[in-house]
Amino acid sequence: MGTTTDDTPAPVPAERLQRFIARILQAVDLPPADAASVAELMTRADLIGADGHGVFRLPQYARRIRNKGINVRPNIRLVSEKAAMALVDGDNGMGHLVMRFAAETAMKKAKGAGVAWVGVRASNHAGPASLYASMPLAQDMIGLYLAVGNANHLPPWGGIDMLLSTNPLAVAVPTQDEPPIVLDMATTVAAYGKVKTKAQRGETMPEGWMIDRQGKPLTDPKRADEGFLVPIGGYKGYGLALIIGLLAGTLNGAAMARETVDFNKDEVTKTNTGQAVVAIDLAAFGPVDDFKRRVDDVARQMRGSARLPGVERIWLPGEQSHGKRQHRSKQGIPLPAPLRRQLDALATELKVEPLS
Amino acid sequence: MGTTTDDTPAPVPAERLQRFIARILQAVDLPPADAASVAELMTRADLIGADGHGVFRLPQYARRIRNKGINVRPNIRLVSEKAAMALVDGDNGMGHLVMRFAAETAMKKAKGAGVAWVGVRASNHAGPASLYASMPLAQDMIGLYLAVGNANHLPPWGGIDMLLSTNPLAVAVPTQDEPPIVLDMATTVAAYGKVKTKAQRGETMPEGWMIDRQGKPLTDPKRADEGFLVPIGGYKGYGLALIIGLLAGTLNGAAMARETVDFNKDEVTKTNTGQAVVAIDLAAFGPVDDFKRRVDDVARQMRGSARLPGVERIWLPGEQSHGKRQHRSKQGIPLPAPLRRQLDALATELKVEPLS
Repeated sequence: MGTTTDDTPAPVPAERLQRFIARILQAVDLPPADAASVAELMTRADLIGADGHGVFRLPQYARRIRNKGINVRPNIRLVSEKAAMALVDGDNGMGHLVMRFAAETAMKKAKGAGVAWVGVRASNHAGPASLYASMPLAQDMIGLYLAVGNANHLPPWGGIDMLLSTNPLAVAVPTQDEPPIVLDMATTVAAYGKVKTKAQRGETMPEGWMIDRQGKPLTDPKRADEGFLVPIGGYKGYGLALIIGLLAGTLNGAAMARETVDFNKDEVTKTNTGQAVVAIDLAAFGPVDDFKRRVDDVARQMRGSARLPGVERIWLPGEQSHGKRQHRSKQGIPLPAPLRRQLDALATELKVEPLS
Repeated sequence: MGTTTDDTPAPVPAERLQRFIARILQAVDLPPADAASVAELMTRADLIGADGHGVFRLPQYARRIRNKGINVRPNIRLVSEKAAMALVDGDNGMGHLVMRFAAETAMKKAKGAGVAWVGVRASNHAGPASLYASMPLAQDMIGLYLAVGNANHLPPWGGIDMLLSTNPLAVAVPTQDEPPIVLDMATTVAAYGKVKTKAQRGETMPEGWMIDRQGKPLTDPKRADEGFLVPIGGYKGYGLALIIGLLAGTLNGAAMARETVDFNKDEVTKTNTGQAVVAIDLAAFGPVDDFKRRVDDVARQMRGSARLPGVERIWLPGEQSHGKRQHRSKQGIPLPAPLRRQLDALATELKVEPLS
C-alpha cells in the first residue's frame, strides 16, 4: 500500500498486521501456534479501535519476553475446579493465552452448569477487557471480565498513596440485529493511556481527570507523575476499583494493591496478574431469541431517546467499537508514524520481515 | 423510653421496631412467618443506616399491599435451574421474601458448584442492595447483588428521556478481623433519595448531582422533576446502569427501560421487579482463612495510606455501615419525628399497637 505522506503511513490490512505480530513473537521464541493466537487477539484489539492495547504493546511485550519477564513455554493449568468455577495458573505466560484458555474453560462449564466463573493468576497483560468478555457471545452467552491493572495510578478515596490500578470491567451482551452491547470501562474518569496521549500531543487535560497531592485539579499531562487519576463517582469508583481488585486479584492469589508490579517501569519481575471471566448461558434462563429481541428493543429505546441540545446521536456501549471494526476490516488499521518506525526498528533488530 | 424533646423522639430499640413492623405487615394480611421475615430484613436496613430503605418504606408497602399491588400469598418458585443457576419467579410477593429465597438458593448451589447466579423476576422493592450481597458472608462466600430500580430517573447519556433507573450494585467480601468489605452503590452520582432529603430540608444540591433538560446543572431540589440524575463517570455510569438492567431485568424476563413501573406514583400495577444475586464459595478457590487474611491486609493498606490535606480518615466500603450497626444495636434506631408520626397514624388506622 505504500505511504500517503511521509508522516501518515497508509492503513495496514489486518491480516498483514497479524502475520507481522506473529513473526515478531516467534522471533522472541513463542511457539508458532501461541504466536499466531496472540497475534490474532492483538490484531482484534486494533480492529475495534483499542489502539493502546493492540500492536502498540508489541515492543513492550518483546522486551519483557527477551528479559525473561514472560514465560514462553508456560504450563497453563487448572489449580482447582468445580462444576461452575475454575482457578487457572497462567505460569507467567502471555496474558492472551492464559485468558483465552480461561474464557474457553468458562464457556465449557457454563454450557453444563448454566453459569461459570474462572479466575486466573500468574497471568500477564492481555489487551482490552472487551476481548474476553466478548468471547462467550458466539455461543449465545453473556460474558463478564474483570482484571487487576498492571500499574497503580489510583489512591484510595482521600488518600495519596497509589495503591490501586484503574481495574477494568467489561460485560458483553448478545443481541439479535443490533451490534452486541459491550461495556468496557476503567474505574477512573480517564484511563492512564489517555493522559499519555494528551502529553504526546502537548494538550491540556480537562479538569476532573487528575488531581495533585493537594487535591487540586491537575491539567498539565506532563506533570502526571505528580498526581493521581480520579475515580468515577469519587468514593464509588474507588470502591469499584477495590472490589474488582479483590475479585480478580486477591481471590485468585494474584497481585493486588502493594504487590502490583508496574509493568511500564519493571520489565523483568513476574507480574502475577489476576483476571476473571464469567460466562452466563442464555439458554438456561429461557428462549435465546426472545432474550436477544428484548435486548434489541432496549437498545433502540436508548438510541431513540429525545436528546440534549447539541447531541447528534445516542450511542450504545460497544457500538462505536463495532463500527470501527467493520471499517478497519475493510480499510485497514491506521498506525501513527512513530509507532510504525518503532515496529520497523523492532523487525530490523529481530531480523524478521518488516510490516511494509 | 419516651421522647427527649417534642421534635426528636428517642431512638427505638431494634427488637421493638422489628416487632412493630411485623404487626403492621400482619395487619395488612401477610402470614405471620412472612411478616416476621420481612420485618427482620427491614430492621436490618435501619440498623446499617440505610434509612431510606428500612421502616421509612413501611407506609408505602402497606398502601401497595392494601391496593392489591403486592401478593401476600405468593408462590415463590423456581422457573428453571441448573447446577450453578436458577431463575426465580417471585409471583409478585414482597421483594424481601423473594430475595431471601434467591440468596439462599444461590448459597446452596454455590456450595456444590463453587459459584451460583440466581436471577429473579416478578419481585418487588427489597430494601438496600447490601442486605442480599451480605447474606453469603456467613457461609464464607462472596456475595454480589444487582437490581433494576423501581423508578426511572436517568436518561441514556446525551438523552433526555428517563429510560433507566439508578440500578444499584452491591458486593460483599468476607474478612478475618476487619469489618467485611461491602460496596453498595447506585450508578448515579447521587441516589434519588438524597435529592428528596435535600428538598425536605430546603437545601441546595451540589453541582454534578442533576442536570436540566438543557444539560445545565440543576441545584434546586424542588425543581427535581425538571431534570435528571447524572450517572457516575458520565457515559460510563450510563453503561453500567444499562448493563445492570439487562443482567437483573431483561435476562430474567423482568421489567427494564420503558417497562419499569414507577412505584412512587403507581401503587397498584405489578412492578415485575428484576434482581440477581451471585454467591462465590471461597473454599473452591483455596484456603478460606488465607483469603480473609489477605483481604484484611488490603483493607489496612488502604486505611494506612497517606492522606490529602484535610482528610481525617480513609474508609473502606461498608465500614461506616458496620459502625452504625454496632452503634444502633446498642443505642437504638433514631427515627425523625415526621416518620414517627406517620408510623403512629398507620398503627391507628390498622388498629395495631403503636411503636411507643
